[in-house]
Amino acid sequence: MEKIYTGKTKDVYRQEDGTYLLKFKDDVTGTDGVFDPGANTVGLSIEGAGKAGLRLTQFFFEKINEAGIPTHYLAANIEQNTMTVKPARPFGQGVEVILRYKAVGSFHRRYGKYCNSGDPLDGYVEVTLKDDDRNDPLITDEALEMLGIMTKEEYKTLGQLTRKIGEIVKDEMAKKDLELYDIKFEFGRVGEDNHVALIDEISGGNMRAYRGEQYIEPLDLEKMMLEA
Amino acid sequence: MEKIYTGKTKDVYRQEDGTYLLKFKDDVTGTDGVFDPGANTVGLSIEGAGKAGLRLTQFFFEKINEAGIPTHYLAANIEQNTMTVKPARPFGQGVEVILRYKAVGSFHRRYGKYCNSGDPLDGYVEVTLKDDDRNDPLITDEALEMLGIMTKEEYKTLGQLTRKIGEIVKDEMAKKDLELYDIKFEFGRVGEDNHVALIDEISGGNMRAYRGEQYIEPLDLEKMMLEA
Repeated sequence: MEKIYTGKTKDVYRQEDGTYLLKFKDDVTGTDGVFDPGANTVGLSIEGAGKAGLRLTQFFFEKINEAGIPTHYLAANIEQNTMTVKPARPFGQGVEVILRYKAVGSFHRRYGKYCNSGDPLDGYVEVTLKDDDRNDPLITDEALEMLGIMTKEEYKTLGQLTRKIGEIVKDEMAKKDLELYDIKFEFGRVGEDNHVALIDEISGGNMRAYRGEQYIEPLDLEKMMLEA
Repeated sequence: MEKIYTGKTKDVYRQEDGTYLLKFKDDVTGTDGVFDPGANTVGLSIEGAGKAGLRLTQFFFEKINEAGIPTHYLAANIEQNTMTVKPARPFGQGVEVILRYKAVGSFHRRYGKYCNSGDPLDGYVEVTLKDDDRNDPLITDEALEMLGIMTKEEYKTLGQLTRKIGEIVKDEMAKKDLELYDIKFEFGRVGEDNHVALIDEISGGNMRAYRGEQYIEPLDLEKMMLEA
């Protein structure tokens, strides 16, 4: 087993059978010791954060696989904090896909001339580049294609899958009386046919959730979702 | 004749016959007394700047009208620094359309991970909101539609018209040994059928042009384009 990548919150190993192993760490992103899922630096380490993130990821990926939506997920080993996945090739050096049901965060910062914070959005999808130095800039389907990152056909597929996955996550959260405001996904190309598939993780740090008027912190969210 | 708008570089009057009169001023945008077409504040006044901008605008709009592309342009009066135009309704509170033949400026700042400054782009079109407070944010066709600013159909038309207009401008500039790197247009809805039409102006401050390796300042560009 060969370590091929050391990430902010996960390490990646290549296994002899061609699958990959993601090892979830207790490090979380943040600034000045305060947990902030949107931050680009590791801010602190929280005991059990890795396991909680993995358990929620397992929960959602199994639902999504069951729905017939392509993902990289194969299995999870909660005891060892690891997830076995199919190898995936990133779009360019990595993109993030954001699905929004409410106008909050960077959407409202950008488009506040045309919306109020918290206005409902009808499953709006946008893509940003993973680029810490440039604050993960927004990019259009046309620019993605022109820069050789993704075809317009892939962009369309990715948007359709994102909306389907979002509905699954939203419905599961509604069962726990939680409202999903927005969520961030990663996609890659998987298999010999290079089909678009959901990759990475779906944990509390990937989304913004509320119970009534109350914002729910990622670690609390994971607890609420996973309790029987 | 009623003054209905005082702009940074133009004032707008409504005339009795229903047309509008744009009065070009010698004020130009800039910062700390230095001319900067991208700036959002009036920086200084340059004698003759209004007339030069109007003459170049007249030159291009007449070519574009001749090509059968819809614009708001009706006539220009160079002596009085005025242009007569059809009334137009903005998209939302105004959008800007940027056409890029080279990866420079904000495109390179955003996507520098995937391109070098000056890389050729194949007529890439993007739309930004006119919003000084939020630094004119980039916006996708999906967000424009969701926020009620523009339909996807209008976005498509606008992209097609932009590329056609860009070719006209680029070809005219090439005749003067000038290379167009990028250019900014405004569009609006004109006529009872609300068709998408080019509005505002096309002057030196709307574009980035080079002669060989040499960046050409807007006022020099206007002189070069207009000399016999």
